[in-house]
Amino acid sequence: MINGKNPPDVGIQLPESKMGIDTVTDSSSGPPVRNVNGKAQVMQVILRTLCLVTSVTALSLMVTAKQASTITVLGFNIPLHSKWSFSRSFEYLVGISAAVALHLILQLLISGSRLVRGSPTISSRNHGWLIFAGDQVFALALMSAGSSASSVSSLNHTGIRHTALPNFCKPLHHFCDRVSASIVFTFFSCFLLAILVVLDVLWLSSKH
Amino acid sequence: MINGKNPPDVGIQLPESKMGIDTVTDSSSGPPVRNVNGKAQVMQVILRTLCLVTSVTALSLMVTAKQASTITVLGFNIPLHSKWSFSRSFEYLVGISAAVALHLILQLLISGSRLVRGSPTISSRNHGWLIFAGDQVFALALMSAGSSASSVSSLNHTGIRHTALPNFCKPLHHFCDRVSASIVFTFFSCFLLAILVVLDVLWLSSKH
Repeated sequence: MINGKNPPDVGIQLPESKMGIDTVTDSSSGPPVRNVNGKAQVMQVILRTLCLVTSVTALSLMVTAKQASTITVLGFNIPLHSKWSFSRSFEYLVGISAAVALHLILQLLISGSRLVRGSPTISSRNHGWLIFAGDQVFALALMSAGSSASSVSSLNHTGIRHTALPNFCKPLHHFCDRVSASIVFTFFSCFLLAILVVLDVLWLSSKH
Repeated sequence: MINGKNPPDVGIQLPESKMGIDTVTDSSSGPPVRNVNGKAQVMQVILRTLCLVTSVTALSLMVTAKQASTITVLGFNIPLHSKWSFSRSFEYLVGISAAVALHLILQLLISGSRLVRGSPTISSRNHGWLIFAGDQVFALALMSAGSSASSVSSLNHTGIRHTALPNFCKPLHHFCDRVSASIVFTFFSCFLLAILVVLDVLWLSSKH
């Protein structure tokens, strides 16, 4: 380091240089840093809480989605029974939503306890990278679960084009509505996690 | 941490120690910076080229997927005709793959021309954020397209549980194989873009 300040356009410092060794404890942050940090931390906690609410809502809407009805085909009354666990995509959505909720509860507990003790929510660069990785993986997983479920749900709605499969959602509208609402909440959770990923990157790029 | 060389008013210091050392080596010698920088840039270009190849492969496998066959139900021969454009999910996959390929070609052209001129591939922090945003959005979009298509494809394979829908993939295995291969390449493109996102974040967190 020449000027004792951050050099302007030095090439890329190898990633390892930044990630590698956490030598110094970071708890020495003074009041000005804490004020600036505080806002971002509170924002993170609010977004995480909101995301927890939406993913739990998606989960509970999906697991309560079942309906029995009848459909009339060629004069015959055929009993129809629909339940979320009949479709693997819906099971997948439930699994991912539950995992996301657990991840968020864990993060909230950790950052909550750190906030209470007055220390910053993210303890080190490695911790920051870990949170980034978790948020990123779960954002992708939610996108996957939401898309997979919505393509099955859209088949239920429209039937399969070019086949004789009927529109299941006419007799089973209660079931289909719940599934659709669950999918909407899943995508909203994904959106919130994507914002959290950007906040994580902002944190990582602001610390040096 | 080297005493007396810490920059003042830095709240959290952990990466500084390592960074300081890096900076010394970086700014004391000119060529090594270019070399280190060059490696990361070449790595980016290689990953982007690979991702371009996989997404174009996914695209071309999908748009060539069609087959005609017959299925025997209750003694009747029913003609079956399958084509990728019969499913909205497959159309979605084609659209997203094409968009990703365009994005990658654009990025490669820009960074290629910059490399030829000897300037760094990413010109500024804002440019870095733009690339991060693009890669992140397209990674999520590929995850969405792949999941959506694979849930439709899996319905074709297994039939819909608890309904009489048959396994379409027995008579149409050529079609189903192409679709499956296309989906695998889509997920691989998504994986490569997710790695590129991490590289973008590393770049952003190394620049200040």
